[in-house]
This record gives sequence, C-alpha cells and structure tokens, in this order.
Amino acid sequence: MILKYDVIVIGGGHAGCEAACASANMGAKTCLVTMDMNKIAQMSCNPAIGGIAKGQIVREIDALGGQMGLVTDATSIQFRMLNVGKGPAVWSPRAQCDRGKFIWEWRRTIDETDNLDVWQDQADELLTEPISGSESGAIRAVGVRTIWGTEIYAKSIVITAGTFLNGLMHIGRKMVPGGRIAEPAVPHFTESITRHGVTAARMKTGTPVRIDKRSVHFEDLEVQPGETRPYQFSYMNKGGALKQLPCWTVNTNAEVHEILKSGLADSPLYNGQIQSIGPRYCPSIETKLVTFPDRDKHPLFLEPEGEDTNEMYLNGFSSSLPMDVQIEALKKMPAFRDVKVYRPGYAIEYDFFDPTQLNHSLESKIIDGLFMAGQVNGTTGYEEAGGQGTLAGINAALKAGCAGSDTANKQFVLHRDEAYIGVLIDDLVTKGVDEPYRMFTSRAEYRILLRQDDADARLTEKAYELGIVKKDRYDWWLQKKQAIEEIEAFCQNFAIKPRLINSALEALGTTPLQFGCKLSDLVNRPQLNLKNLSEVIPSLKEALDRPSNRKEEIAEAAEIRMKYKGYIERERLVADKMHRLENIRIKGRFNYEELQGLSTECRQKLQKIQPETLAQASRIPGVSPSDINVLLVLMGR
Amino acid sequence: MILKYDVIVIGGGHAGCEAACASANMGAKTCLVTMDMNKIAQMSCNPAIGGIAKGQIVREIDALGGQMGLVTDATSIQFRMLNVGKGPAVWSPRAQCDRGKFIWEWRRTIDETDNLDVWQDQADELLTEPISGSESGAIRAVGVRTIWGTEIYAKSIVITAGTFLNGLMHIGRKMVPGGRIAEPAVPHFTESITRHGVTAARMKTGTPVRIDKRSVHFEDLEVQPGETRPYQFSYMNKGGALKQLPCWTVNTNAEVHEILKSGLADSPLYNGQIQSIGPRYCPSIETKLVTFPDRDKHPLFLEPEGEDTNEMYLNGFSSSLPMDVQIEALKKMPAFRDVKVYRPGYAIEYDFFDPTQLNHSLESKIIDGLFMAGQVNGTTGYEEAGGQGTLAGINAALKAGCAGSDTANKQFVLHRDEAYIGVLIDDLVTKGVDEPYRMFTSRAEYRILLRQDDADARLTEKAYELGIVKKDRYDWWLQKKQAIEEIEAFCQNFAIKPRLINSALEALGTTPLQFGCKLSDLVNRPQLNLKNLSEVIPSLKEALDRPSNRKEEIAEAAEIRMKYKGYIERERLVADKMHRLENIRIKGRFNYEELQGLSTECRQKLQKIQPETLAQASRIPGVSPSDINVLLVLMGR
Repeated sequence: MILKYDVIVIGGGHAGCEAACASANMGAKTCLVTMDMNKIAQMSCNPAIGGIAKGQIVREIDALGGQMGLVTDATSIQFRMLNVGKGPAVWSPRAQCDRGKFIWEWRRTIDETDNLDVWQDQADELLTEPISGSESGAIRAVGVRTIWGTEIYAKSIVITAGTFLNGLMHIGRKMVPGGRIAEPAVPHFTESITRHGVTAARMKTGTPVRIDKRSVHFEDLEVQPGETRPYQFSYMNKGGALKQLPCWTVNTNAEVHEILKSGLADSPLYNGQIQSIGPRYCPSIETKLVTFPDRDKHPLFLEPEGEDTNEMYLNGFSSSLPMDVQIEALKKMPAFRDVKVYRPGYAIEYDFFDPTQLNHSLESKIIDGLFMAGQVNGTTGYEEAGGQGTLAGINAALKAGCAGSDTANKQFVLHRDEAYIGVLIDDLVTKGVDEPYRMFTSRAEYRILLRQDDADARLTEKAYELGIVKKDRYDWWLQKKQAIEEIEAFCQNFAIKPRLINSALEALGTTPLQFGCKLSDLVNRPQLNLKNLSEVIPSLKEALDRPSNRKEEIAEAAEIRMKYKGYIERERLVADKMHRLENIRIKGRFNYEELQGLSTECRQKLQKIQPETLAQASRIPGVSPSDINVLLVLMGR
Repeated sequence: MILKYDVIVIGGGHAGCEAACASANMGAKTCLVTMDMNKIAQMSCNPAIGGIAKGQIVREIDALGGQMGLVTDATSIQFRMLNVGKGPAVWSPRAQCDRGKFIWEWRRTIDETDNLDVWQDQADELLTEPISGSESGAIRAVGVRTIWGTEIYAKSIVITAGTFLNGLMHIGRKMVPGGRIAEPAVPHFTESITRHGVTAARMKTGTPVRIDKRSVHFEDLEVQPGETRPYQFSYMNKGGALKQLPCWTVNTNAEVHEILKSGLADSPLYNGQIQSIGPRYCPSIETKLVTFPDRDKHPLFLEPEGEDTNEMYLNGFSSSLPMDVQIEALKKMPAFRDVKVYRPGYAIEYDFFDPTQLNHSLESKIIDGLFMAGQVNGTTGYEEAGGQGTLAGINAALKAGCAGSDTANKQFVLHRDEAYIGVLIDDLVTKGVDEPYRMFTSRAEYRILLRQDDADARLTEKAYELGIVKKDRYDWWLQKKQAIEEIEAFCQNFAIKPRLINSALEALGTTPLQFGCKLSDLVNRPQLNLKNLSEVIPSLKEALDRPSNRKEEIAEAAEIRMKYKGYIERERLVADKMHRLENIRIKGRFNYEELQGLSTECRQKLQKIQPETLAQASRIPGVSPSDINVLLVLMGR
C-alpha cells in the first residue's frame, strides 16, 4: 500500500497536531500518522495549558493561526492570569482543561481542517534516498514505512514522536516498554534516523499519581479558585462553555518525606536504573527531597481532570518510587488519609535527537526534508511542543513548495525579539540541550517585547502573508489594531485641566496636577489606569466602549502600550542593534578548524553548530566576544 | 503493592463494565482492572447497540439494573425498532451510538458507582491457592498479579479480557500482536489459567475499514433514516440528547468482487495464516464472496461514528485482505470512488476458554471463585458480553458473600424461559462453542415469552430481591405494572355495543359486530389496536392517558399482552413442563463412564459437561431422548 502527500507528520501529540494543521492550512496535502486518533493531543501529564512563559507561547501559536489556544478555550475548566502583581512583560495566562474533552475538541478541529488526512498506524522506518548530483553522499527523507507495511511518501516529513521512541516506563524496580501507560513503544524508528549520522540520546520525564476524588478529604485542602474575569487564550474569542472548577493546594510534611525517603533504594532515579536526565523544573517529589534536604514541606496542587470525572491530578507529586511507597506517603497527609488512586506515578525514558543538528526552520542539517518538533528535540511541555510544531508545519509546507510557486527554498524563522517560539528554537539549535528544555521568561532577553497581550501584533500579519492565517482572523486583528490606535490617539490628544481632575487624583492616591497635561501622561502613573480614569472622564469611557467586541482586551493592550512605552522603545533599540549582527550571515563561509585565531573550544563549537549568523555564533556557549571580533575582522568588517 | 477487594473484574469492555457495576451495585467492594480507563466499553467494531435478539438482551440487562441501555440512550444518534412488520416476539430495538461519547458516558457511570474502584494496569497472572481440606487438589482463584507487580486479592475474580489474551492482528500477510489497533496484547495471562487444566483455544474476529466522511459521494448512497417515534432502551427513560443522524446503504458490484478475489492468495483467512474460526453471521467480505460465489452484490451500510466526527463505519465490509486490495475494491463503488480511510479493516485472533467448563453462574468448574464473561467464553457481540457480564458480576458478588450474610453458596441463574441471557448461558455451558456465538431469536424456544417489551416484567422483581435493582427502578416498575393491569382490566370489563362501534369497525376494514362483546375481544383483531380503538372510544383514550409518563410504552405492553395472550399462555405451559425436568437435579449423582445403558458418545458428553439437571442433559448435542429415559429409570422415576 502506497500513499502520497506533500507533508507527513509522524505523531499526534501537541507538536504533531499543530504541525499537521499548520501544514494543511498552508495548503499542503498533509497526512497525520498516529497510532490512535482517539488519543491525539493527549495531555499525558498535567491537564493544564499555559503558565509562565508557556502561556505566551500559546498566544503566539494562536496569533500564527494555530489551534492550541482555541482548543484550550473550548475546554477550560479554570483560567488564571499568573503574575498580574508584576509587570505585564511576565503576565502569563494558564488554564486547567477537561482532559477528555480537550482530545475530542482537537479531533473535531483536525476533522474540520481541509487538506488533512489521518492515517492510524505506527511508524517503523524513515525512508530516504541519496540526493541526486550530491557528491558528499547527502540524503533526503522521502517517506515512512509503517508496522503494517504501508509506505507513505512526501516532500517533507515532520517527526513529533514525543516519548514513544524506545519508550521505557519505570515504577520502582519494575520496567515496562511503552510510549505511555497502555500504549506501545516504537522500537525501530530511531535507528532508521541515526543510521544516517543523526545523534540520538535518552531523556527522562515523569508524571504523578491519579487520584479518585471520592477518596479525598477536601476539608483538609485549601481551595484555589479561578479568575472571575473571563480571560481567554485565543484572540479569536470563540468562547468556552464548560463549568468552572476550583483547584486545591496542600503541603507535604515530615512524615510524608520519611516514607518517600525509605523508598529511595528502590528509586530508579537513585539506584542507577535510570541514567538519563529529567526536567529540572518539574522534578519528581523524591528529587525535591534529595535536592532540598532541609525543606520540611513542598506544595502540592490537586487539579480536576475534567468537568464530570472523579479523576484528579496531583501536581508536584511526580514519582517513580515503588507504588506502595507513593501511596503510603500520600496517606500521611490528612486530606489523603483514605486515598484511592487509579494508577501510581511513573517515569519514562525515551529517545531524543540533538537539536543542534537542526536549522532554525527545524529542518535537519543532515537529512534534507526531515523536520523535528517537540520532545524529540529535547524539550518538555505541551506549549513548547506546540510552538515547534507550528513552525515545523509551516516550514515543512514551504519546503514542499506549497503556499506559492517559489517557496521551496523559503524558510519561516522567528527571531528572538519576535516570539518566545523564536527564543526556544534559537536556544535549541544554537546551544543544544543536556536536560529537557522548558521555557521561562528569563530565557528571553527582550521580555517586554514578547508579551502575552501583543502576540497578534507581533505575528498575525506575518502569518497572514504566509497564508496560514485566514482572512477572518486577519480582519479581526486589523479591527483590533485600529481600535487600540484610536484609544492611544485619544489619550495623546485629550488635554486635562487640573481643576477638573485633581480631586479624583487625590482620591486615587496620586499627586494633583499643577498645570494641564495630556491624558497619556497621566496613564503612566502607577496608581492610574484607563479603567479608573474612565470613571472620571466620560469621553474616555466612551472611547473605551467603542470597539464592538473584546473591549477589555483592547483597553488592556492600549494601556500596556502607553504605560510601558519607554521600556518597549528602549528594548526595541537594543534588539535592532542585535539584528545587525543577525544580518551578518556566516554560514558556509569558514572552515573553522583552519581558523587559528580562535580558541579550540570555539573552533569545535562553531564547526559543530555551523551558525547561520554572527549573532547566533555569539550565543553559542564557549564562543567569547573576542572570538566574535576575530570573525568580524576575517569578514573585513 | 497489595490491594484487597471482594471482587476483581479484569478487563473494561462491555462484559467487564457491566460485571463491575453489577458487582458493586450488589454491595461488593469491586476493583475494575483495565489498561486504559479512557477506552472502557470501547465499541471495537460497529458503533451500534442492539439489533435482532441482541436488543432484547440490552432490555434484559437494563431490567436487571445494568447500564448498557442507559448509556446507549444517552449517546444514541439513531434509533430503529427492527422487525416491527412481524410479531412482537421478534421486535428488536437497535441504536447507532456516538462512539466517543459512549465511552465517556460509561466512564461517568463507573465514576458514579459506589463500591467501585478502577485500577489502570494490565493483568499478568492469575493467583490461586489449593482449597484447604480438598483431597482432589481443587484450587481457588485468590487474585491477580499485574505487569507492574501489583497483587490484587479478592474472593471472586471475573475475567472479561475480550480479544486481548495473546491477541494477534492480521492485515494481508502482515501480523502485529495487540488487543486492538494501538493497544498491547496480554501475553502471559492465559497460561496462568490453562496450567490448572482449563482448556483454551483460538477464535478470530474482524472489523471493517474506517472511512473519512469528506471523501464519500453521498449522492451515490441510499439514505436510511431513524425512527421518528422516540424509542429508548432503558425502562428508566432518562432520555438522550444527541443529534439524530441517518445511516446509508450501498451494494457491492462485480468489479468490487473481482478486485477482492484477486487478493485471496494474500488473505490470512484463505492462505492458512489464520486457522481459527470467525463469527459465522458477521463474515468478512472475502468470506461472503467465497461462500456465495453466485451473488453479484452484497449490501453495505455506512454508519456515522458520532455526532461531530468525520469517521464512518462501513458495516458489511469487514476484511483482513491486504490494505491496498481493500481500498482499491472500495473505489469501484461510485460512492467511494475518491475514498479516504483512517485505517483498513483487520482480523484478530485471540484466546478463549471452553465455556462448557463453566457452571450456569459463569463460575469455572475447575477453579473455584473464577468467573468468565464475554469473548473469553467464545461469544461475539457487545450485548452478549454485557449480558454475561451482568450475570457474572451478580454471581461473583454472591460468591463473595455480599448482598446478605448467607449468599456465598447462592447462585443467580436465569432459565431459558426467563431471558435471552438464560438461553445464551445455557447454550454456552451445555453445548460449548466451535465458532463465535451470537444470539438470534431462533435460538430461543420460548420467543413469545422473551419479548423486548416485557424484560422488566420478567426480571426486575428478581433483581430487586437480589439488591442490584434499587428502589427508584423498582417503584417505577410497580407503577408501570399497575398501569398495564388497569388498561387490561378496563378492556376486559368494557362492554361494546354493535351500533356504537360498527361504522368504525367497517372503516378500519374489519367485520362489524352482531352482538355486544368485551373490548378485549376486539383488540385481538389484526386490524385493530388500542390506538385506533381509543379514537372511537373516548373512555379507552382516557384510560390510556392515565399513566403519568411513558404512556406509549405502557399501552404497547398492555396491547401485546392482550393480543398475544393465547400464544403466551400456550408457551408458558410448555415451559412449565420443561421446568419439571429442570427441577430434576442430577449433578454429581452418576459416574457416567460406568453407565452401560448409554451410548458411548452420550457417556463422554455427560462426563464432560456434568449437567446440573435432566433438562440440561437433554440439550447436550449427542444426548438422545432414549438416553434421558435411561437416566430417568436409573433415578427411579
């Protein structure tokens, strides 16, 4: 059996689903190969989307025409805007979702996407061929053979296999092969890639116990309600309809720790059974005990898995200790004294491929036409996966010559000042990974440019030009943009007289005016915002009410742009300066091993990474500013 | 890790879910062990419940306090009453369901069932121990060990493993181990049962291709709409809310057949790769071609898989031919000329256990405390599985001493004149199976007693006494019963005068009355029914309108009881006669090998089956009426 497509996406997780939709929406005939279409976009670990820096990525995926935001909005059971006490650069949306409905909403989305077929099967071998006329033995990916013997051919192939490649699960000293509980591992596929020189290694991740709600004493937990203000992920504002539910928090205690420690001898993380490295910022509970021996408690979060299920997720209690140790330890917390679980936590080891072997388009430098996204690149997180998937899907479609006649050599790359997705991919391909990579706001040097409120301003126009964003979304962005600019113009033009405003200013705890000023000058004061000013300035209220929908989002965006104008402009200047280095392309210009003016480490790193620009070279660990100067001199600058 | 329960159910399919709920509702602390709680009660083959004889079983499960009817009602997207052109003995309800929502509704049901825990894991070994004091080396089942090393102990264990035990899937010459597509097989468990002398063998089943709706030319199909009258499966009448959708029909043709035949050499059914036998009445399309070489067409039914999915099921096109053969053949039908599929059809071989090694309670004769239900007993069909699961769950709870202090030696058995479930189990344990057993109305000798309309009359009172039916359902049944009797009494007492009715009778095409008569005499006429009579007899209309809900169902039940009174009473007489033989218990009274008056075949069969009663002995294939006479003489009767 032979099938032919423009693009194949292998794996139906968060990276694969976004990649498949992106590719199809770019106009490429796309085949999503997944073992089980009833488990696509499964939230294998916590049933939540977003969070610090991750929420920004979801907004970016949405602004690029992706689906994660829409699916999250349709299935969320709790929404919170994290970090609102801090500056807007770090405001981060996060939603709990109904795990089961999230899958079905994704499946509906895929069902409704034109150009996208689903093939339920399991990849067994990457098919390649030599590039004709290439003297160096270069090869290209041409397709995939499945365990059922089907051969699917395409111009671009995106691998988004998550934890399935040689997946091996651990609970205590027990090991069972599998990609997830009750799902088979994929045994041979890795070898069909590494045989061409791509380097693979192992990583580890884990997930906590799933608890039966009926066994929990909620009176011994602290409730954590969601937002009352209806935030959403998607700028398309399609709305969600599920019941809003609270989460709960509780702390571990000394007794819990004692029992957990008693199991360390049987912990696969500490008895040598697992050698590979897990996500630093999502450690197992036993790792927290070992790393922070002085702490007498750790916070846990009990999160509902859905509107109408008894299954709950115990965030913070990830573990691969023997299951009786996990359960006995739980029982030492009053809330869980009668706990019943559906299954214990477990760890899983899986193959990933060194991401420094990729270009910024997420295409392999070694196998032409092969793209990779998600955990196979050594990242962790649904959002990181979805962001890479979106870019990989776009670039796979471009490579396949879709979205226009002349695109086969075009790449769509996001820079570090344009998107967290740009930071993520640049970090991966430039620095590589030695542990699962998770996004943080601190990884972005241009945080104030990469806000959750302006992802559409940064990306939607670009995505419309690519063709992945359709007219409905683009028109909505143009309307929003115009509405924001009208509010800004109003504030810049509106002159305020001291005698009319001063009593209000005093009431709001800020100094009264001596002379008249523009409204935009007042907005910058920390005590003031458009909302409280509009209560005393009726024509401002009118201006804020003018947009026909999503007034709150528009006012928020306008206010942030005005309040942080100085910071934003300053960061823009720095970013533009760096862009000049980004524009100095060096790829292929040097045989670094012959450049004697560079340090040995620098020569080796540059030879391995083959940076595309001088800016990228400067970000490689081990490349110093003086090395960059040597390169600049050699380039005659 | 050790867990303790009253009852363990291994496998979360249609048999396992009913067994688990039945056991828990009987008051037994029950643990359902399933690999994946997001796939419980998966409709692995067609997304429909009920049909001829099967629909009656669903009504019986419902009348016994089971769940299949309620879940079906809540998720059905098309309901049809089959056979309404024939007598009410064979009226059979059937519903298409939304496959995904069916699972979630089942999961919600299980979540809401008290005494029922779910453990996500995979059975690896049955744990047994010798029965203390037993001289013959008898053993009992005490628990199960899982692949993760958990040991779960209980007094009764129900095995409902479906196709998972040593499951091996076939498409053409390709074979892949698994319990279903994308789900692992269970490799060792069978051996832990057969090592104690239980006989296992192999069966085969198959499923058709799944089609992408968007690729179908519906103008080349014939539409098959559902009922407009809102029938339901459950007597509890909780209602369903899904959108009603049509099904579609089409015929194969000579070109289709030619392509399919070209693949026969690679058919695992015909090249020796599969030796085991599949369901006779659900043959693959290639088997239909081979069995009926003269037919130039076979009907196919294209059925939606849900409200909002593009996935469709092609009923009648089950196949394990190579996938390109399946797809090329499909393309020769105009409706499928551009067909796209999600996956091809496949066959699966799996282990089952000879059901003659079971008692009528579905408990093993060899391993005490071990119950089996569903495909592991050699049956096919969700309804057959659910019916066995219900009985196995009830009996497992009784065995565990639940539902009262004195129940450990009590069995709940349904006789052949009480339920299709009784016919099913009696056939299994008496005759055994040499191919997957499916229920038909023709298997029941007391069809007119086993109607879809009166399953509650037959079973709900018994189930209430057991404790599995709760007060709400029982009260509803008492109300319904009273309402039916009131209508019957009204008809028996209401005297009709010829001059008031004769013109109406003539208009309805039946002979006018010469003398007055009772209304009940008129109802028996084929042209008349309660509905058309009520239009001319206002006080009848008033009597029919009196019940506060489900008037139509009550009127239908009353009418059938009156119209078929003679048949029903005659069949009751025959059944009661047979009951006298059923009451002659012979189990354990003879060493058949020493009885020289019996034929050799009879001696061997009786020795193997060890029938519990003389009536059961008479139904064993190879036991003749003269053999029964010998036994009667030997018993001094």
